[in-house]
Amino acid sequence: MREVRLSLFGFGNVGRALARVLVGKGSIFRERYGLEFKVVSIADTSAVVWLPEGIDLREALMVKENFGMLSSWTNEYEVYSFTPEEAVREIDADVVIDVTNDKNAHTWHLAALRDGKAVATSNKPPLAFHYAELMREAERRDLPYLFEATVMAGTPIITLLREGLKGDTVEMIEAVLNATTTFILSRMESGLDFEGALKEAQALGIAERDPSGDVLGIDAGYKATILHCLAFHPVTFNDAHVKGIVEVTPEDVKRARERGRTLRLVAMVEDGNVRVEPREVPLDGPLAVESHENAAVIKTDLLGELVIKGAGAGLKETASGVVSDIIKAALKV
Amino acid sequence: MREVRLSLFGFGNVGRALARVLVGKGSIFRERYGLEFKVVSIADTSAVVWLPEGIDLREALMVKENFGMLSSWTNEYEVYSFTPEEAVREIDADVVIDVTNDKNAHTWHLAALRDGKAVATSNKPPLAFHYAELMREAERRDLPYLFEATVMAGTPIITLLREGLKGDTVEMIEAVLNATTTFILSRMESGLDFEGALKEAQALGIAERDPSGDVLGIDAGYKATILHCLAFHPVTFNDAHVKGIVEVTPEDVKRARERGRTLRLVAMVEDGNVRVEPREVPLDGPLAVESHENAAVIKTDLLGELVIKGAGAGLKETASGVVSDIIKAALKV
Repeated sequence: MREVRLSLFGFGNVGRALARVLVGKGSIFRERYGLEFKVVSIADTSAVVWLPEGIDLREALMVKENFGMLSSWTNEYEVYSFTPEEAVREIDADVVIDVTNDKNAHTWHLAALRDGKAVATSNKPPLAFHYAELMREAERRDLPYLFEATVMAGTPIITLLREGLKGDTVEMIEAVLNATTTFILSRMESGLDFEGALKEAQALGIAERDPSGDVLGIDAGYKATILHCLAFHPVTFNDAHVKGIVEVTPEDVKRARERGRTLRLVAMVEDGNVRVEPREVPLDGPLAVESHENAAVIKTDLLGELVIKGAGAGLKETASGVVSDIIKAALKV
Repeated sequence: MREVRLSLFGFGNVGRALARVLVGKGSIFRERYGLEFKVVSIADTSAVVWLPEGIDLREALMVKENFGMLSSWTNEYEVYSFTPEEAVREIDADVVIDVTNDKNAHTWHLAALRDGKAVATSNKPPLAFHYAELMREAERRDLPYLFEATVMAGTPIITLLREGLKGDTVEMIEAVLNATTTFILSRMESGLDFEGALKEAQALGIAERDPSGDVLGIDAGYKATILHCLAFHPVTFNDAHVKGIVEVTPEDVKRARERGRTLRLVAMVEDGNVRVEPREVPLDGPLAVESHENAAVIKTDLLGELVIKGAGAGLKETASGVVSDIIKAALKV
C-alpha cells in the first residue's frame, strides 16, 4: 500500500463530490491500485484547513455543508489564511488538485510543478490561456499535469486524444461541449424564447446566476481551445472565434426543425482554427445530444470518424474525471 | 532520435496496411515522438525474412504483392524457415508485432515477453483464451503487452477502458463488435434470406470463404471476452454464452422493423457474464450501427452512460490500432 498525499483546492459542489468519491471508493482504490489517499489540506474561499496526518473527509463535508465555510472549523484542525500560491509552497503533498474557478490558477499550478508536485485540474482557464507554458513545465520536470475533467466532465475525451490515437493524425473535431446551451435550445424548440428558456434553466440550477460564460459560448470556447492544443498545437482562447446563443430566435429554431435538424452550440476544431457557434445539426446525427450529454466527432486519417458521447456536466460525472487523473498521477509520482 | 526494432509476424492485408503506415508516416512519427522504426524481420506463412540492418518495406510490399509469398525473395535478404517461437528467440527486436490469425500465438507471445520484448497484437485468440497468463507475464517483466486492434479495430475502446476510467467501476457493456453480421442483417432487411445475404457478403469480400467465425458469433465472442477481462476480471471464451445469426429469419428481421427496432449481433458484458446473441435494438439508439461501424455503450457508477463508436473493421483502421500500440510500446521500452 502506498500513501499518496492530496492537497485539495476548491470545496464547492465538485470538490465535495470528489471528497465523497474518495470516501466511498477508498477501499476499491486500495484494492485495485494499492493506493491510499490522504487529503492533507482543503481550501475553500474562506480558509485553508491543513493537517499533515490527514483530514477526516466526512467531518470536512459536514462542516462545509452545515456552516458554509471551512473557516468555521474550530476543533483540533489548523485553519490558515494562505493564498493558493502560499498553500502550494507550504503544504507537503504529492498531488495538487484544482477544482476551483480561479482564472489565475496557472500561477499556482506552475508553482506546484516547480515544487515537484503533480497537478490534476478541472479548472479550464489555466489550460485555455497557458497550455504551452504549463505543459513545458510539466515535461521539464517529468510530472503529470492532468485535466480530464476540463472537457466533457469525466467522459474521457482527453485520454482518448492523448493516449488512444498515437498513430493517427487528427483532421477535425466537431463537438457539442456545453450542456446549458443544449438545455436552452431544447426548451426553445418547445416554443419559449431565449429569455424564457434561460430563466427556466436558472430556476432549475442548470444555468448560473451570471449565465454569460455559457450563453456567450465562452465555456465551450475554453474547451474547444483545449481540444485544439491536444489535437494540433498550442493556441489560446484569444485565437478562438466564439459566438454564443443569445441572438438565436424561436424562428431560427423552428426553421431548423422543419429541415429535420436541430440547433446546437457546436465547436469546430481544425488545425489553426477554433470556432464555436450555433449550428444546425441533423436530428439523427451524433451531435443532436439532449440533456447533460456532450458528444464529439473526431476525424482522423486512419480511423475515419470516431464518436465519443457521454456526460458533459454533473457532480459525480466531473469528479470521475478528477479522480481518474488523481489515480494516474499517483501511479506515476 | 531513438531507433526501435520491430519484428513483424503476419504479412497479409493487415500486415501490409501496417507496413504502408510505417512507410507513409515515418517522418511524422520521427518528428512527433522522436522514434525511428526499423523493421528487422517480416514473417508470413511461407518464410521469415530477417535483416538486422532493417528491411526496405517498399521492396517487401512489392515482393509480397507480386509473388504472393516472402519465400520468393531472392536478393541479398536472408530467408529463414523459423517457427514463430524460434523467430522470436533468434531475432533481436524491441517490439514483437502479431497481426496473424495464429490460434496458438500465446506460446510465442509468452516467449517474447520472457525474452524481454514488448508485444503488440491484433490477434484475438491469445487474449480470449490466455489473458491472465499473458498479463501476469507482462506485469512481472514490466513490459508492454498491447492489443488495441483486437476489439473495434483502431477505435480506442481498449485504451478507454485501460486508461480513461481509472476511478469508475464498470457495471455493464453492451456492444456491436462484428461488422460482417451487421452487413448480413442489414441486407436481410432488404428482403434477402440469411443464405442470400451471406453470399452477397462473401462476393463483396466482407465475409470470408469460411464465414463461421463471424456468423456463429465467435469473433464477437472473442472480443466480448477481452472486454470482460479488462472491465471486470479474467475469463476465457469458454465461459462465454455465444449464439450467432444463422437462425435469424427474414420474419425476425421484419418483426423488429415493425417495432421501430433492428436486429444486431449484440455483446452483453457484465461481471461474470459474457453473452453474444442477435437482439433487437432501437433504431435511434447507439447500437443501431451500419456498415463497418462498431459501437459500445459502457455503463459506470460515476459517469452513467458512455458511448464510443467508430470503425470496427478495415485495413488502415486496424493498422491504426496496431501502430498506436507500437508507439506506446516504443515510448516505454
